[in-house]
Amino acid sequence: MATLQQQKIAQIADILRQTHIDCWLVWVRETSQMMDPVLPLIYGGDLVWPSALLYTSSGEKLAIVGNFDAGGVPEGLFDRVVPYTEGISEPLVAELATIDPASIAVDESVDDVAADGLTAGMKTLLLRSLDGTPYAARLVSAAPIIGRLRGRKTVEELSRIEQAVQITEQIFTELRGFLAVGQTEHSIHRFVHERMKAHNVGDAWQADHNPAVDAGPDKAFGHLGPTEAATREGHLLHLDFGVRFEGYCSDLQRMFFFGSPDRIPEQVMKAFDTVREAVAAAAEAVRPGIRGHQVDDVARRIVSDRGYQPFQHALGHQVGRAAHDGGTLLGPLWERYGDAPNGILEEGNVFTLELYVTTEDYGQVSLEEDIVVTGDGCRFLSHPQQELLCVPPL
Amino acid sequence: MATLQQQKIAQIADILRQTHIDCWLVWVRETSQMMDPVLPLIYGGDLVWPSALLYTSSGEKLAIVGNFDAGGVPEGLFDRVVPYTEGISEPLVAELATIDPASIAVDESVDDVAADGLTAGMKTLLLRSLDGTPYAARLVSAAPIIGRLRGRKTVEELSRIEQAVQITEQIFTELRGFLAVGQTEHSIHRFVHERMKAHNVGDAWQADHNPAVDAGPDKAFGHLGPTEAATREGHLLHLDFGVRFEGYCSDLQRMFFFGSPDRIPEQVMKAFDTVREAVAAAAEAVRPGIRGHQVDDVARRIVSDRGYQPFQHALGHQVGRAAHDGGTLLGPLWERYGDAPNGILEEGNVFTLELYVTTEDYGQVSLEEDIVVTGDGCRFLSHPQQELLCVPPL
Repeated sequence: MATLQQQKIAQIADILRQTHIDCWLVWVRETSQMMDPVLPLIYGGDLVWPSALLYTSSGEKLAIVGNFDAGGVPEGLFDRVVPYTEGISEPLVAELATIDPASIAVDESVDDVAADGLTAGMKTLLLRSLDGTPYAARLVSAAPIIGRLRGRKTVEELSRIEQAVQITEQIFTELRGFLAVGQTEHSIHRFVHERMKAHNVGDAWQADHNPAVDAGPDKAFGHLGPTEAATREGHLLHLDFGVRFEGYCSDLQRMFFFGSPDRIPEQVMKAFDTVREAVAAAAEAVRPGIRGHQVDDVARRIVSDRGYQPFQHALGHQVGRAAHDGGTLLGPLWERYGDAPNGILEEGNVFTLELYVTTEDYGQVSLEEDIVVTGDGCRFLSHPQQELLCVPPL
Repeated sequence: MATLQQQKIAQIADILRQTHIDCWLVWVRETSQMMDPVLPLIYGGDLVWPSALLYTSSGEKLAIVGNFDAGGVPEGLFDRVVPYTEGISEPLVAELATIDPASIAVDESVDDVAADGLTAGMKTLLLRSLDGTPYAARLVSAAPIIGRLRGRKTVEELSRIEQAVQITEQIFTELRGFLAVGQTEHSIHRFVHERMKAHNVGDAWQADHNPAVDAGPDKAFGHLGPTEAATREGHLLHLDFGVRFEGYCSDLQRMFFFGSPDRIPEQVMKAFDTVREAVAAAAEAVRPGIRGHQVDDVARRIVSDRGYQPFQHALGHQVGRAAHDGGTLLGPLWERYGDAPNGILEEGNVFTLELYVTTEDYGQVSLEEDIVVTGDGCRFLSHPQQELLCVPPL
């Protein structure tokens, strides 16, 4: 059976042909200190000395690595492993001369952190190695390759994400049985971590704010840890939570209300319905071929039509090895998102759909679901939250 | 009590003055996907949106971060936290205009991976943000800052490394009691991992080749995992092993011999003595102010004087948060080490001293010790191996 890395590598040649790029050069060193985010997908190990992983549109796969690294290269990933001792420049130029690519993609991207694994110093080192050759002038960004490679989930990748989502939902169910008035955000955070341990899953992002736990009206949601704020009768509780299952992430938000369903304030109901309907409308709009910002716009318009301030983040990001997996973004055309919202959705992409609106007296109401793009639309990987999860008084 | 990050930040202004750099800009995003290696030292958390951490030679400390990140910035690290919503360019340029630095160091280095945390795309983004200002032309490498910052261990950092070394030596002692003829490299690797678990320490590098376990004469040492090769009477066993204790690493190599001390072959004795004496002579040469390659040369000359082929790596690297901690290297002036062997040793630096020679019939003999540079020389953090660790026949 092919490993996940072998499955991903098998996608590369097609992607190179579709993006009209002759050769992809993954150029890394000391990856245990700082790892190009694409490496776990196509390599699954560490490299110490400057290393060149080369893939061509005709399907060749080649690794030029230090002699101490050569024995550690996983089996079955490359046609050839070329070891060197004193310097990589000579074998690198020799191999490029044989391939003679018109374009060489490197992992550099202003807009996509997942495609920006090349460091500034390593880029200089590459340009020095290629000095006096025609190849320095042929470098292009590998972002179109990496975006597609990460975005086109294999059956195995999708299966891992679905299991991560299922476990996340299971823990939300367990949490509902635990919740009561008077619990601090810290104690809720602790409970969720105990359940993660029991389910043998890791954190989709940094543990101290996974889950983000927001009790009551006084906290703007964001990347912050739990506090001593406590749950109260008549208040909302919000969680933003993701787990990592066999290397793949989920990312969901759920809203709880402390009190009977008939005690939910009118303004909270209106906010919840707005968010829920914006998620549903965005999902309706998702299909292969549409641009990311078009989907964001559908949700954003519903929010403004109902008289709320716009949400200050993108509607959705891709999910995979990272909770924020890069590539096409379902986001507005703002400076900080660069070109990512112009990306085109492809079958097999996994996205979040998430947004919040702010109520007058009860803080923010925010939901987040996970979807996969299908041949003609999308399918929810999560069970979209349809009503507030009420925790009745004892 | 100051946190470790606060202690390290307190070193920055002095280092900036000594290196004649006005301002250090740590420029990062989505650090859970790919983290600038300096960030755990000075921040200790994650940042999602493009973020600027600014330190000046007059001691100012400032963070410009996305509004969703602002609440998660640890207490006590900055004088001010400046949040932004749509784009970082405007607040960044405004703050730089106030500081008006003649030089702005960024984390870019050809030679030092620990100082090369700026990605190529993020550098472009920075240059775009600074376009039309005088600051784009004032960028310099932060390598001299980061090398000193990582290299000058605080009392707390040194204490953690010493504890890592002690636990590593304790596990070697426990291993000696376990070893017998006929064990596979896999079973030895497994035993060491069980002991690591018992001592509650992590791996200093990737678990699958930590420890590197090399039984018998047929394996060149390097970054490879254990095999089904087994220990045999009259053969050598080599381990390269490091643990991580509270974020700080050890890195040691030890040699075992299966048989009575009086059965050690002459060529193995000669090889062992050569390596041991080369380590001791190098340690004698270590003192503040000497250059890295001068120390490497001392050991390299002993090896060649005794008629052995030169070892194909540097004599020593710094140890800290990473087993390979960057900065000044005790290495030869080879292309692949760049300028790192020209670095000057400073008090408080922690280095490995490691080398191998190859015997005719028994494979490689390799040792590695850890030292700290003192005011006038060095002190061993490990207990240097003085004789082969013999495992007598049952």
